[in-house]
Amino acid sequence: MSTCPAEGYSAANTDAENIACVVATMNTAFVNYDTSNTNFWLMFGAILVFFMQCGFAMLEVGMVNVKNTKNILIKNVFDASLGALCWWFFGFAIALSAPANGENNSFIGSENFFMKDTDNSVKSTWLFQWAFAATAATIVSGAVAERVTFGCYIVYSIVLTSFIYPVVVHWGWNATGWASAWREEDLLFDCGVTDFAGSGVVHLTGAVAALAGAATVGPRIGRFDAGIKLPQQSVVFQTLGTLILWMGWYGFNGASTLAIGSSTGDLSSAAAHTMVTTTIAAATCCLCTVGITALMSKDKVIDIGAANNGILAGLVSITAGCSSVEMEGAFCIGIIGSLWYIAGVATLEYFKIDDVVGAVPVHGFCGVWGVIAPGFFTSKEQYASAYYSARAADCAGVFYGGNGNMLAANIVFVLAVIGWVGVLSTILFQLCKMTIGVRVSLEVEENGMDDSKHGGKVFSATPVPTQEV
Amino acid sequence: MSTCPAEGYSAANTDAENIACVVATMNTAFVNYDTSNTNFWLMFGAILVFFMQCGFAMLEVGMVNVKNTKNILIKNVFDASLGALCWWFFGFAIALSAPANGENNSFIGSENFFMKDTDNSVKSTWLFQWAFAATAATIVSGAVAERVTFGCYIVYSIVLTSFIYPVVVHWGWNATGWASAWREEDLLFDCGVTDFAGSGVVHLTGAVAALAGAATVGPRIGRFDAGIKLPQQSVVFQTLGTLILWMGWYGFNGASTLAIGSSTGDLSSAAAHTMVTTTIAAATCCLCTVGITALMSKDKVIDIGAANNGILAGLVSITAGCSSVEMEGAFCIGIIGSLWYIAGVATLEYFKIDDVVGAVPVHGFCGVWGVIAPGFFTSKEQYASAYYSARAADCAGVFYGGNGNMLAANIVFVLAVIGWVGVLSTILFQLCKMTIGVRVSLEVEENGMDDSKHGGKVFSATPVPTQEV
Amino acid sequence: MSTCPAEGYSAANTDAENIACVVATMNTAFVNYDTSNTNFWLMFGAILVFFMQCGFAMLEVGMVNVKNTKNILIKNVFDASLGALCWWFFGFAIALSAPANGENNSFIGSENFFMKDTDNSVKSTWLFQWAFAATAATIVSGAVAERVTFGCYIVYSIVLTSFIYPVVVHWGWNATGWASAWREEDLLFDCGVTDFAGSGVVHLTGAVAALAGAATVGPRIGRFDAGIKLPQQSVVFQTLGTLILWMGWYGFNGASTLAIGSSTGDLSSAAAHTMVTTTIAAATCCLCTVGITALMSKDKVIDIGAANNGILAGLVSITAGCSSVEMEGAFCIGIIGSLWYIAGVATLEYFKIDDVVGAVPVHGFCGVWGVIAPGFFTSKEQYASAYYSARAADCAGVFYGGNGNMLAANIVFVLAVIGWVGVLSTILFQLCKMTIGVRVSLEVEENGMDDSKHGGKVFSATPVPTQEV
Repeated sequence: MSTCPAEGYSAANTDAENIACVVATMNTAFVNYDTSNTNFWLMFGAILVFFMQCGFAMLEVGMVNVKNTKNILIKNVFDASLGALCWWFFGFAIALSAPANGENNSFIGSENFFMKDTDNSVKSTWLFQWAFAATAATIVSGAVAERVTFGCYIVYSIVLTSFIYPVVVHWGWNATGWASAWREEDLLFDCGVTDFAGSGVVHLTGAVAALAGAATVGPRIGRFDAGIKLPQQSVVFQTLGTLILWMGWYGFNGASTLAIGSSTGDLSSAAAHTMVTTTIAAATCCLCTVGITALMSKDKVIDIGAANNGILAGLVSITAGCSSVEMEGAFCIGIIGSLWYIAGVATLEYFKIDDVVGAVPVHGFCGVWGVIAPGFFTSKEQYASAYYSARAADCAGVFYGGNGNMLAANIVFVLAVIGWVGVLSTILFQLCKMTIGVRVSLEVEENGMDDSKHGGKVFSATPVPTQEV
Repeated sequence: MSTCPAEGYSAANTDAENIACVVATMNTAFVNYDTSNTNFWLMFGAILVFFMQCGFAMLEVGMVNVKNTKNILIKNVFDASLGALCWWFFGFAIALSAPANGENNSFIGSENFFMKDTDNSVKSTWLFQWAFAATAATIVSGAVAERVTFGCYIVYSIVLTSFIYPVVVHWGWNATGWASAWREEDLLFDCGVTDFAGSGVVHLTGAVAALAGAATVGPRIGRFDAGIKLPQQSVVFQTLGTLILWMGWYGFNGASTLAIGSSTGDLSSAAAHTMVTTTIAAATCCLCTVGITALMSKDKVIDIGAANNGILAGLVSITAGCSSVEMEGAFCIGIIGSLWYIAGVATLEYFKIDDVVGAVPVHGFCGVWGVIAPGFFTSKEQYASAYYSARAADCAGVFYGGNGNMLAANIVFVLAVIGWVGVLSTILFQLCKMTIGVRVSLEVEENGMDDSKHGGKVFSATPVPTQEV
Repeated sequence: MSTCPAEGYSAANTDAENIACVVATMNTAFVNYDTSNTNFWLMFGAILVFFMQCGFAMLEVGMVNVKNTKNILIKNVFDASLGALCWWFFGFAIALSAPANGENNSFIGSENFFMKDTDNSVKSTWLFQWAFAATAATIVSGAVAERVTFGCYIVYSIVLTSFIYPVVVHWGWNATGWASAWREEDLLFDCGVTDFAGSGVVHLTGAVAALAGAATVGPRIGRFDAGIKLPQQSVVFQTLGTLILWMGWYGFNGASTLAIGSSTGDLSSAAAHTMVTTTIAAATCCLCTVGITALMSKDKVIDIGAANNGILAGLVSITAGCSSVEMEGAFCIGIIGSLWYIAGVATLEYFKIDDVVGAVPVHGFCGVWGVIAPGFFTSKEQYASAYYSARAADCAGVFYGGNGNMLAANIVFVLAVIGWVGVLSTILFQLCKMTIGVRVSLEVEENGMDDSKHGGKVFSATPVPTQEV
């Protein structure tokens, strides 16, 4: 083919030679376009998901007492930073390594530690998946805020992003994971789990660790005393954080198609569909949660906290099924997600487990519901569009003519995640308790973490005249 | 064509067969690329425009009294949420439905309610247009803040996004709308309206409803008392909101090309041009507004409020003409937009209409100017690039050799929007007044909305030590 | 070729005619895709970099005394606005003009002032580069905050974005710049400078001007008095700003590939690689800076300020080498960047130069290190991927088998930037001092800039009940 001219064809060549040249040029171009489209899409998604760190930081700092401002901010910043190193060293390898010999196992990845033997072609995937890993870690920090020791925070943050979470990713999303829908054979209940963007893989994992942490560390002083409501810093920051999270979720769910389109197929319409279902579920769950809590409250309070957590509950609820349910499915998932969230709040209250930001109701209760929901609401059309058309008839949701196998697979996956993360993170927090300590002293808690550990209470943020010191 | 090999051609085929295979492969690829490029671009734009909800929330919460913090935040969150359901149920159908038989009318869409009979191919459009609809609703909430009843807010929010606004979209942007530049024949003044991204469709619509609301509900207590300036929460939040809005506007204006490029044409250069004119108008209007207000003030005050609203005034002013005016046109539009904004503020002051955030001057006065401006400043080259080259000579702005037809079309459109939205929204607010009430009681207004309706005044956001309760 | 049918080929044509038609169709499509991919990528990057203005605004407003809130916000808003006009009028021409006759010189551009003789094809580049220019100006405002006169701010902002900065861009990035790696011949030390996204071009330029400003204007009252720590507004805003900056930096570094991929080559994998090294350096430098400052402090303080500035220090340090170093290189660059930052803080302290936000340590010290670092850590593979494979063996870093030429080129570039910017900006600030004044009066400084110039101190941002006035 050495005669192929730059212009693509030449009058001096035979027709056959020219055709071969055209095909070669075309195929080169398609490879380049396919690669750059995919990478752009993943970088786009990764940046949005990374920005969720900012959303979580604002949400959490808005929900804590001002005396713990610096403490919660540092934890959020560290989740991304520590998470990046852990994901580089161990996480990516355990979650997503693909051995050259194809002999990956179904439980845990075993190559590419420290990104060894990889090249730039996986960098966008690394970036996207790192942002997800950081999200899982951040979920914990909100639940155990205002009283967990900094040392224990460091330990669980490292272990979660280096080991506990990547294993779950491997199970659910790696092509060789035992529960993965992307396996070529021996699929769990012939379908594998339908957890498209990670209601289970990410949110439930984070929430189970959060629950183990909150239970181990115990409630804040006064949290369950009658008539007391602990002060929160600012609903403005909470709402800012929630709206940032809503935006970031479009990357979380949308870019989980992992590609946007190629010369041989289109995934962009499926991606747009995920964003629409994401919108509907968030909106519906927001309105429902506000409505229900208003009806439940004595004075018919329209609560901004319910609105914000309602949005987040809806987003978590739709994350697994975003690509495979229809808009009306998303609507139902949002309504039911609202009930799960409210049930989660009541459950924690009943068991006197103190979860500062409501991480367990939002990411845990709605995480479970999120994974189960596609088992009911997945339509054949959308399953075919986002997964495999050959399996669509069997693996659709039971309300849409499916045979229940996918629902079964999803339930098994939920139980597996709860078991794996629950056992390991409970051991982890208990080990902390027995060694470095899991909870700060009474004195430190009362005075606030900022004063004891972070250089003093925050300067006044009050824009009133201050004296020149 | 069943003999086409995966590699694209085969030595066993005749040249003619191979050519046919190449063409088939190529065309499939182009359809895929065109689809995914368009969807990606619209999702990108939609996410940016959605983030403007966060910008409006921060801007508005910064401008109200702290006693109404939760109230204004909930309204902003609801604008997106309620808007999503309304847009799904009714809005999209009325605005953009395209009947299979092509018999759409020029006034209002009549199919696809509840997104019936649509598939994933319109999902990115739905998403992008939903974000626009939510913007229109949000504009109102700022103007009537701090005293409108929550019930009335719910009603106008639903009616605006379900009916009033979608009809305007249908008029201006649907291929069959009576004022649309995208009609195939019977164009309004042979040009149709040049309102590229919606100075009229979105901003003027929102602002006219805002004006009707603000006039009906009346000014806040003390607003026009001599020597009194009502307290605002925070210029930091205002500026944060403004900068978020500026960013989001790149999606608003840029992605209004609705496509980025395809195998047969490029729109990305036109899109980049819209972002440049958007930048120039925002920057110019910011500087002018600050300069003029400084010269007008007694102490030559360099005012951050003028800077922020100047940016927004410039952005609204360029929104209709962003794709069709040159950089120097954008510069002039920004300067004049600044004067319109200042005139708008003075006009409201004169008529003692209380508009908490300046929504009417920014989105209304500059919305009118925005639609008129391309009638003067549209160049033939840019009109050809963003609209139709065949009409460019006639439909350019009068300063650029156009025959004035487009200016006439744009003026008619402005009057139609003012008439339609003005009449309907006045009726709406008056109906509220006669039934559920449009304004809270004197007592509630003085004490703040948060205390009466939203569970109490906000916790202290002051990062000074607080007592453990 | 007038016989080419819309379908791409026709049975009525000869094979040769059909092949020619296919090639023509294909080439048209490739031009369109290449153009739209490139423009989309640059717009995507530009919007992210523009959002850094919001990040800087939040960071800086969080670091100043509340009495200067409006002042610092206006400056940040003006950096983008004034910068847009300056970049339009002069900056782009000086930095990046490409004369039709090819006779550009190596020191300064000389055509395209006011964007004359350009068309829409350069608009995305203009937008992207404007956002960079605004960044350079913003760096200065933080260093000289709380006491520089508004007039002097206006002057240096204009001169910096119109002249000083664009010349540096021309040197380092224009295809004809004397230090540019993109020259076709006569490369500086046969390699040109490796400053991929502008550790030197942007950050060092901003920081040298900041240093000249801070030295000329002198420290704030009380800044170096024993036992005094000047009040800062809010660590929440600081952290919000830092996380926004981190996000924006993915556009800053990633989109500096200037293209994402085309029919003939892929740059998206290289872009993803820049985002990964950016992540690693930011994360590492954050952790190191927190660790080192904790060990250095008496009470082992885990400092949120160190975490935030550590992130920024890491980001600046990797900006030059982001595309050409490996992940382990980024790790080392982050660690060493942390030391440079801490040394920078100590140096300013020693010389009693007051830099309110730490702009000089972050952007200056780490800017120098950033440019030098690729001289050590650039790998052949990544150099070939992001620059030229033909030069990769010679121009790699000295730790990766390079011959030291690139290191030499980079050192020369650092010295040139320091010389050029240092001399001009010192003259500029001294001229201000001799004419309009560089520093506000003692009285104004004590009372705050907002009261003297911006319409009064900020309203209370404290969400506690306020009296209705």
